[in-house]
Amino acid sequence: MLSHDIRSRLPQLRREFHRYPEPGWCEFRTTSRVVEELERLGVDRIAVGREALSTDHRMAVPDESELAFWHERARAAGAREDVLELTAAGHTGVVATLERGEGPTVGLRVDLDAISLQESDEPGHRPADEGFVSEHDGYMHACGHDAHLAIALGTIEAVKESDFSGTFRVFFQPAEEISGGGKPMTESGHVDDVDYLLGFHVGLDTPTGTIVAGVEKPLAMAHLTATFEGASAHAGKAPNEGANAMQAVATAIQNAYAIPRHADGMTRVNLGRIEGGIASNVIAEEITLHGEVRGETMALMEYARTELERVLYSAAEMHDCDVTPRVISESPRVDSDPRLRDLIGHVARNHDAVEEVVSTVEFGASEDATFLMEHVQGNSGLASYVIVGTDHPTNHHTPTFDVDERCLGIGVDVLTDAVVETGRRRPGA
Amino acid sequence: MLSHDIRSRLPQLRREFHRYPEPGWCEFRTTSRVVEELERLGVDRIAVGREALSTDHRMAVPDESELAFWHERARAAGAREDVLELTAAGHTGVVATLERGEGPTVGLRVDLDAISLQESDEPGHRPADEGFVSEHDGYMHACGHDAHLAIALGTIEAVKESDFSGTFRVFFQPAEEISGGGKPMTESGHVDDVDYLLGFHVGLDTPTGTIVAGVEKPLAMAHLTATFEGASAHAGKAPNEGANAMQAVATAIQNAYAIPRHADGMTRVNLGRIEGGIASNVIAEEITLHGEVRGETMALMEYARTELERVLYSAAEMHDCDVTPRVISESPRVDSDPRLRDLIGHVARNHDAVEEVVSTVEFGASEDATFLMEHVQGNSGLASYVIVGTDHPTNHHTPTFDVDERCLGIGVDVLTDAVVETGRRRPGA
Amino acid sequence: MLSHDIRSRLPQLRREFHRYPEPGWCEFRTTSRVVEELERLGVDRIAVGREALSTDHRMAVPDESELAFWHERARAAGAREDVLELTAAGHTGVVATLERGEGPTVGLRVDLDAISLQESDEPGHRPADEGFVSEHDGYMHACGHDAHLAIALGTIEAVKESDFSGTFRVFFQPAEEISGGGKPMTESGHVDDVDYLLGFHVGLDTPTGTIVAGVEKPLAMAHLTATFEGASAHAGKAPNEGANAMQAVATAIQNAYAIPRHADGMTRVNLGRIEGGIASNVIAEEITLHGEVRGETMALMEYARTELERVLYSAAEMHDCDVTPRVISESPRVDSDPRLRDLIGHVARNHDAVEEVVSTVEFGASEDATFLMEHVQGNSGLASYVIVGTDHPTNHHTPTFDVDERCLGIGVDVLTDAVVETGRRRPGA
Amino acid sequence: MLSHDIRSRLPQLRREFHRYPEPGWCEFRTTSRVVEELERLGVDRIAVGREALSTDHRMAVPDESELAFWHERARAAGAREDVLELTAAGHTGVVATLERGEGPTVGLRVDLDAISLQESDEPGHRPADEGFVSEHDGYMHACGHDAHLAIALGTIEAVKESDFSGTFRVFFQPAEEISGGGKPMTESGHVDDVDYLLGFHVGLDTPTGTIVAGVEKPLAMAHLTATFEGASAHAGKAPNEGANAMQAVATAIQNAYAIPRHADGMTRVNLGRIEGGIASNVIAEEITLHGEVRGETMALMEYARTELERVLYSAAEMHDCDVTPRVISESPRVDSDPRLRDLIGHVARNHDAVEEVVSTVEFGASEDATFLMEHVQGNSGLASYVIVGTDHPTNHHTPTFDVDERCLGIGVDVLTDAVVETGRRRPGA
Repeated sequence: MLSHDIRSRLPQLRREFHRYPEPGWCEFRTTSRVVEELERLGVDRIAVGREALSTDHRMAVPDESELAFWHERARAAGAREDVLELTAAGHTGVVATLERGEGPTVGLRVDLDAISLQESDEPGHRPADEGFVSEHDGYMHACGHDAHLAIALGTIEAVKESDFSGTFRVFFQPAEEISGGGKPMTESGHVDDVDYLLGFHVGLDTPTGTIVAGVEKPLAMAHLTATFEGASAHAGKAPNEGANAMQAVATAIQNAYAIPRHADGMTRVNLGRIEGGIASNVIAEEITLHGEVRGETMALMEYARTELERVLYSAAEMHDCDVTPRVISESPRVDSDPRLRDLIGHVARNHDAVEEVVSTVEFGASEDATFLMEHVQGNSGLASYVIVGTDHPTNHHTPTFDVDERCLGIGVDVLTDAVVETGRRRPGA
Repeated sequence: MLSHDIRSRLPQLRREFHRYPEPGWCEFRTTSRVVEELERLGVDRIAVGREALSTDHRMAVPDESELAFWHERARAAGAREDVLELTAAGHTGVVATLERGEGPTVGLRVDLDAISLQESDEPGHRPADEGFVSEHDGYMHACGHDAHLAIALGTIEAVKESDFSGTFRVFFQPAEEISGGGKPMTESGHVDDVDYLLGFHVGLDTPTGTIVAGVEKPLAMAHLTATFEGASAHAGKAPNEGANAMQAVATAIQNAYAIPRHADGMTRVNLGRIEGGIASNVIAEEITLHGEVRGETMALMEYARTELERVLYSAAEMHDCDVTPRVISESPRVDSDPRLRDLIGHVARNHDAVEEVVSTVEFGASEDATFLMEHVQGNSGLASYVIVGTDHPTNHHTPTFDVDERCLGIGVDVLTDAVVETGRRRPGA
Repeated sequence: MLSHDIRSRLPQLRREFHRYPEPGWCEFRTTSRVVEELERLGVDRIAVGREALSTDHRMAVPDESELAFWHERARAAGAREDVLELTAAGHTGVVATLERGEGPTVGLRVDLDAISLQESDEPGHRPADEGFVSEHDGYMHACGHDAHLAIALGTIEAVKESDFSGTFRVFFQPAEEISGGGKPMTESGHVDDVDYLLGFHVGLDTPTGTIVAGVEKPLAMAHLTATFEGASAHAGKAPNEGANAMQAVATAIQNAYAIPRHADGMTRVNLGRIEGGIASNVIAEEITLHGEVRGETMALMEYARTELERVLYSAAEMHDCDVTPRVISESPRVDSDPRLRDLIGHVARNHDAVEEVVSTVEFGASEDATFLMEHVQGNSGLASYVIVGTDHPTNHHTPTFDVDERCLGIGVDVLTDAVVETGRRRPGA
Repeated sequence: MLSHDIRSRLPQLRREFHRYPEPGWCEFRTTSRVVEELERLGVDRIAVGREALSTDHRMAVPDESELAFWHERARAAGAREDVLELTAAGHTGVVATLERGEGPTVGLRVDLDAISLQESDEPGHRPADEGFVSEHDGYMHACGHDAHLAIALGTIEAVKESDFSGTFRVFFQPAEEISGGGKPMTESGHVDDVDYLLGFHVGLDTPTGTIVAGVEKPLAMAHLTATFEGASAHAGKAPNEGANAMQAVATAIQNAYAIPRHADGMTRVNLGRIEGGIASNVIAEEITLHGEVRGETMALMEYARTELERVLYSAAEMHDCDVTPRVISESPRVDSDPRLRDLIGHVARNHDAVEEVVSTVEFGASEDATFLMEHVQGNSGLASYVIVGTDHPTNHHTPTFDVDERCLGIGVDVLTDAVVETGRRRPGA
């Protein structure tokens, strides 16, 4: 059972992280605070930034000026210089290891980043009412990663106090929202010896008191951008002299959404952002689309990607434009292992605060924790992605998203017990 | 014949205006400098800003913050406080009147604004080589309005020295590039008693030494914006829950360009700029299109606008979105009067520097001088829009646009003689 | 065990039906032959045509001239006058009942119609090689309904010879291919007292010797047509005077395929046939689309239909056309009951010719047997749709489709045993 | 002045041709009747069918079975065997020559074919009321070529009675509606020595009593067909396995109409007919489009054709289909010569029945008489295409089109006088 001390610190930790949201690959201040907490807790090894990642496998890294802006902002807010050095130029993240003798290696994966969204400061939004609303204008922890951080740190403390035997390693992964950090953390080597891996998320329409032992069918996904380049011309005097990127992009959008449904299962295509052209009287020379494809399997995602690329190329050709689709980031589909789900369901039922345990749900969305899960399963380990229920007044990724902080203690309880219980087993058992 | 003094000042004036380009409705510094020059020349009456415009008829006025930025910049550069006051909040422009006894009222219309374009600073671009490149980053006199200002001021000086009899009034009109200033200047009352109106433009593929006595068929035009508003949703989990502005906008673009050609003559449709949506994994909630329609006649332009609006509304409805097309600005089609063209052609041939006189050409583009011309012709006056040829190394609206400064003197010569000659006639003669 | 007599007649029966394929609602000759066979077998009651159907619930009935053509052709081929009278004007089909004392009412549903396809007469296509190729030019039993008829008649004979106790009723349903006959047969009253219902199909990529005890997830489906009506005009002289059905239909097609995927499961949209317009130099006045929507559930099918209708209406409106989408026919989704699947699987395993029994597969396609199944299940009965495996050299609905006639005996064996076995049970048991 | 005999026969001739409309290249009966009339009139030379055409230059010839159907129908109606032999397999048409001594060669071109349209038999439609409605179901002289034939025959008779000196040659050209006959008649050699060529058309919104001396700006035109070939698949089970011709064709249509307007002048694009696909539940494998492009000049028409072909190819590629656009027929733009227009206007004014003479109008449509005109002008001859006004109750190409038969006499009068007058001139004078 979680000590009173740990439990009481959780809301305070979560609220501090909530006030300082940082976007993917820019979690410099967050990383520094995590390192400070880990040192306070006294773990055995801490790998920071470059030590925790494979630089070459990073995806969707922002440009230098954005990285520099957040790096400087973190320094101004008092981030530690040693951490700033190790994380410079988009190398955020931490891997913390607790050595507890004989036993399996159990991993816990948690994500650090926030999203680009202006938080509400209206009355009725608790972070506003209680004074922990975002201080970074235009950015917000609107997906609950602040709660994840508090739960992960609480779980380390609780495992330390437990009779867990084995190695416990926590992966503080950057850039989940842009599917950028899962791959380089997986390729860092720190996941190689993990026997059991737990990922988790709060909320997702699961109410406080409910635990989903492990999700199925996170969708394989790829983010892409495509810039159409044509030729400008005077729209009144000589429209025929242009190569109209606007017409090319419209043709591409129309046909992208019409990529055929596939016999083998679910696919998704979306083009979510667009910008380009300079004025109403000029044939548009350059327009950029930001999109994604998903599939119930990697093969289905790749079907959608291949079809999308053909649509993009043909639409460009039709209007005498060029286009170069670029994959920005991607993540595979990996299902939670039923054996590990059984174990988690079993320990969850021991807690009074857990009113309902659901064995599994279909995830529907994508998650780059699947890179770590895939690696563990590939090495014959077991992995599961748990949902820790929390009531939330509005949807994830909205300006009034908030969590029920009772979920923090429940999360620590269930994850700690799962870690302890797996420590009693043999991998593959 | 133009005095040596006037002629020698023209390049210097043009280059000063070239260094300080200001966008439509933000020509605060330019207006101030024009007023200073007019006072130096000694005209009889100067109406500035609010005195020169009908406030309610202004179109395409930028938002307050942009107006304030340029207003402050002009103040910092030494613009006169009395002018700044009269022009505040988007009221740039001047009407200058020279009283010279009995005779008709002759108008000359000139435009003040520059465009949003980064000027080249590469060697070979004369403004860069000779030190008068734009000092306003991202803005440039790339359409020759700097030359227009020099010609207009030179013409006032030359008319003053001439034996012209009548009233000479010069309209320094703001916001031509965005078709915003022609209408409010026309509605100011200052055009009501004009018997003859001369508009003019340098270049337009007409070489130095050639004069086009008056253009035909400027296209009637309307600028529009349309913002599609749908509903966002998670592109992976529930694409069906969104109302996808991206699909609506693609349908609209495809069908807008496919608006049928019209039996009665030329039409144009263009959608030149687009932006919207927030991320690749979110169904786009809001996307804005910037477009225009043109026609050989007002009726044809209105045909295109009506059809475009139907396309926009139906595309929105198809995807459960809302859209509100808004007309930002517009301008009518008005042809130059053949009698006035004859007069201009006649006086132009008297100058050795004029190698060729063309009676008329089809204009192809749009011009809001047509508001003033329409008003004058409606009062039984005559109006013509003259092209003063100039070699230009690259196209209008490109970063290396420049004029051959020999055009300045030619412009003053021809326009002055046209003013003087019309002073000898009766309206409608 | 099937008597030698019955077994030996099956190929001959199937081949006779194969030679005279008739399209939906035109199975006049087929109905007549079925009646003759039933009389020969000696069943207790035979309801024919109007007696077997609810006239008002028929869907997708061809026009009078087509019905008259096939009616006359059947008469010329010797169809019985009493049958021709009862089936006139699109009332094909038979319900045959065998009374065998105490026990449940067991139904078997079989389909009569062929499709519009020219059968191959190339060597290597067995019907051509062995002289039973279609004698109705342009029509073919290319989906195996000829085999279904032989199996159903054989099963009646075998049940008659068995110790079955109860009532056995066979539904010879017309117009399955166009989803037109399931509903009116269901509404005829003959299904009301059925306790167990068996539907079946041969082939569907299931090889000879395999039995699928009952399919899941037949897709709910609706067929639609939509005629766009605009206004013609001379494409050269006055394209603007038309209301272009060609543009409307293109907009509709593009957007129909782009109807968003749904969170709740699989949907399908297809526009499979198009025709309209009169000449290349005339703006098209009228174009007709033939399409369908499907869904994993009725709600999903209706989602797709509602969205498709909005697309059609908006596309018409955009181009000043009218459109009236009409639903031609539809069928619900009904899954096979697991208890009945167990029974069927059990009896199937008793036959040596059955090499493999599969409990269930996802069906993927649509089937209007689901109307009967839905009705039976709604009355607390059990229903299952069985696949009787057969090798087939090419796909269903291709000119060289054929069945392995060993499937005929297997089908009679398994279905007869299933009927006999259900006769030993109580409904719902 | 036209003799009473000729004038009185014109309506009767026109009405006979009206009753037996034949489509392009199938004018077998019409050709036979023309030959009979020419023999009755007594011209000097008659070249029929193969003698009047260059076989290899024919365009848009129907398939053999259609040609055979009309050939047989003509034979059954009593067409002459010698004519049937010379016209077999799509070789209709006649060239008739009248030798009248010294002088220029003057040509008159007339067209023979009708269109595919069901004529109205409603009261109020004069051909119905007065018993000369079409006897060929589904075909109609709805463009006035029946009147043209009467006028041409009347003009031969009148020229014969006149004091014309020179050679008069009349080209009875087949297949004008499908732009198929102008080219092969031009390439036959019979046009080589023509000094003056007159083409003509009745109606075209020009009222009875008005003559247009010669049209300008017939549009250059090309007819095309394009068949998209993809791959079929089951729309429910495996939509991804198809290559959907329906999606390809919709993309092509959308983008074809959106081909940019051209700076140099008018262009037209139309896709007027479409058909393909087999059923609503099958991904469409093959769909055919029938379209056309036009331009104010040949270069503009070719711009539109090139762009259309790129759209077709890219749309096919986008959906993994093949497409082969084929040009079926085409015609150039040729303007009427102003000198010949003056002559025609001059003679027209001499007739009381001619109330108004218009020098020229813009034609807007296309006409393959331009092949003959182009050839004559290329040899330094003069050519003009005259409009003989007639009131017509409804538009050309509609089921209630009719002419005011007063136009027949006017046409003969004006054309005869024009022929006689040109006989008095030297070519090029």
